[in-house]
Amino acid sequence: MSEVKTKAEKARTAAAVLNKLTTSQKNEALQLMADSLRSQQDDIISANKEDLERGKAQGTSSSLLDRLALGPERIEAIAEGLEQIIALPDPIGDVLETFERPNGLQVTKARVPLGVIGIIYEARPNVTVDAAGLCLKAGNAVVLRGGSSALSSNRKIVEVLRSALQNSALPADAIQLIESADRSSVDEMLKLNGLLDVIIPRGGQSLIRNVVENATVPVIETGAGICHTYIDETADPAMAEAIAINAKVQRPSVCNSMETLIVNSRFAASHLGHLADQFRKSGVEIRGCAETLKLVPWAVPAQEQDFATEYNDYILNVKLVDTLDKALDHISRFSTKHSECIVTENAAHAERFLQEVDAAAVYHNASTRFTDGFEFGFGAEIGISTQKLHARGPMGLPALTSTKYIIHGSGQIRG
Amino acid sequence: MSEVKTKAEKARTAAAVLNKLTTSQKNEALQLMADSLRSQQDDIISANKEDLERGKAQGTSSSLLDRLALGPERIEAIAEGLEQIIALPDPIGDVLETFERPNGLQVTKARVPLGVIGIIYEARPNVTVDAAGLCLKAGNAVVLRGGSSALSSNRKIVEVLRSALQNSALPADAIQLIESADRSSVDEMLKLNGLLDVIIPRGGQSLIRNVVENATVPVIETGAGICHTYIDETADPAMAEAIAINAKVQRPSVCNSMETLIVNSRFAASHLGHLADQFRKSGVEIRGCAETLKLVPWAVPAQEQDFATEYNDYILNVKLVDTLDKALDHISRFSTKHSECIVTENAAHAERFLQEVDAAAVYHNASTRFTDGFEFGFGAEIGISTQKLHARGPMGLPALTSTKYIIHGSGQIRG
Repeated sequence: MSEVKTKAEKARTAAAVLNKLTTSQKNEALQLMADSLRSQQDDIISANKEDLERGKAQGTSSSLLDRLALGPERIEAIAEGLEQIIALPDPIGDVLETFERPNGLQVTKARVPLGVIGIIYEARPNVTVDAAGLCLKAGNAVVLRGGSSALSSNRKIVEVLRSALQNSALPADAIQLIESADRSSVDEMLKLNGLLDVIIPRGGQSLIRNVVENATVPVIETGAGICHTYIDETADPAMAEAIAINAKVQRPSVCNSMETLIVNSRFAASHLGHLADQFRKSGVEIRGCAETLKLVPWAVPAQEQDFATEYNDYILNVKLVDTLDKALDHISRFSTKHSECIVTENAAHAERFLQEVDAAAVYHNASTRFTDGFEFGFGAEIGISTQKLHARGPMGLPALTSTKYIIHGSGQIRG
Repeated sequence: MSEVKTKAEKARTAAAVLNKLTTSQKNEALQLMADSLRSQQDDIISANKEDLERGKAQGTSSSLLDRLALGPERIEAIAEGLEQIIALPDPIGDVLETFERPNGLQVTKARVPLGVIGIIYEARPNVTVDAAGLCLKAGNAVVLRGGSSALSSNRKIVEVLRSALQNSALPADAIQLIESADRSSVDEMLKLNGLLDVIIPRGGQSLIRNVVENATVPVIETGAGICHTYIDETADPAMAEAIAINAKVQRPSVCNSMETLIVNSRFAASHLGHLADQFRKSGVEIRGCAETLKLVPWAVPAQEQDFATEYNDYILNVKLVDTLDKALDHISRFSTKHSECIVTENAAHAERFLQEVDAAAVYHNASTRFTDGFEFGFGAEIGISTQKLHARGPMGLPALTSTKYIIHGSGQIRG
């Protein structure tokens, strides 16, 4: 049997055990995992060095190498991440509904684990621990398939985590790492209906597209964010500037950062010049529509395709509009339905925007950068769902659960 | 542009309008639809005759022709179904969570429509109306693709429904019927990411398998039910018999009926002979394991594959076990995770069964036939989900919604 199928079957068997564990049994296991990461940090760092050296030899960019690197501080932060998961309430067993039918049947809808979760991700080895911790806390076994550039790190980390579980009530088989670097191991995971209950891809667009297009296992799509900020005619200029700069510049590489700024043309007439200068000072290239170029002559002319591009970089599209309707039309056309913002002092405009824009998170007078599990107070997140089924927006522990109807009867039969 | 894409785009445009409508606007439209079905029943019945005649000429079985047939009573029942949907609470706008963050952000999680729902189904033309009514009430546009055997009926029904919408606040384009009988129209729907938000297949196993295996649009899987009833050693014999007979015989053709009866061997020693006789009187063929055959010599020997078969017919597998664990093992191996029942007077056994069996609905001392939106009091159902994402078990209106985070700020930016 293939590595993928063998390990998925072990995870499935482990999931049946996990389903029966108490919150404190799960928390004890998570603490053992955190302790082992700390006590074995030297082994992890030396495994990580192998990845870094291989990466350097292959000419990997320094920014990617930085994301891959593990030192004592990062390992401590990862261990603390597990302790944050311990502190989160256990969603399993929560009763979501309970009702009695006229025939006396007592129906309870309760949260149960999903079962076995597949995570397909790229470079950063901290995801290995975060994802495993969150899945286990919600009573799920996990099959991890990280990027080959982090394989030595991931192998050592999973070895440490699994051996920590030996001293816990959790089966070590609850954490599985697919070690094959071959792309076919991903393809095989995507079709493992019956063994995997869901696959969550975390990574760049091509990784996510491959998963969405080829999986027969249900998928929770995460990630892509072409986020807009619309500055309305009545926006407070200082607030609008602070929000727009923050949405673009505070961390351009992430999905909830802004790609396109839409500006009401009357607001723009007074304020766009100054605002554009602030972006320039922050090192942001502006690609503007024809109207923008009249006010910001140094901007690069925007092509149609630019408005459909997630730069994740110091590049910003700027588009002027006459009316709220035109802003809504532009967003409806180009949005990836992640996070969208209106800055306005006009309550009716705010209300329309929040109601009509179809996105996981819609903001009035706040930066789109807040779309994040930690910022929402979920304590942790497994990703940000950009689909509409099951979970939408930042996903905390409840997104890693399903439900079950439990029915108590006294001999009822259907007439 | 293809029929499928053209109609899906019209549905997408209509969905943006639907998203803004009030409950009473939607209910008025549903009432107009019900009224039109009644006033134009003669046209519908004559369109239905075309389907029936074509079916007869093609040698369609009488049971399928019966499912296809529409008379005044069935049309009245379909119209009443729409009125039942009017009576249901509108889930859109329901606030599921609301919290304030330390930085003052006000976060609300509210129910919103999914957007555009694709329904792929088989013969019965009542699904055309039920599905459209439920989707519209939850604020969604719908793209219907029914079986070619009901095409004339569906075409007339959709014409009637769409012309009813002309007099309402709902755009007629909110209801689309794919008329191409070509299988490629299904294939095209399955890949319409961005235009369809979800596809719900309703029909037999091969229809559902095709959708699950080929869709890139998210799917809610419905249907397959290999349901078990386990009679424990301490079961009340009269209750066990009533439940087992009901689960098999009351309507064998549906997904929540029983396919396999598991019996504790000590209970079987005293009671299986009588129980088997009752099944025989009801016209049920028994396929038994080796131990069963000792007690029921007239039973047919069960093959391994029988336990993995959804008969939807008057055929029942019977398997004897020594222990609850063996019953749980058998269920874990063959269950499609739909509905599972234990009949027992032993509370600890009941508790273990309800906790450990992984299924959408788990029963203690009641027939599995109750897994149904109407029986659960949901007023209607779009299907019974057998997957773990988004919705599990009978799906009422809330299963046809998504959520959105609405964030009110006062200039917050991320530090």
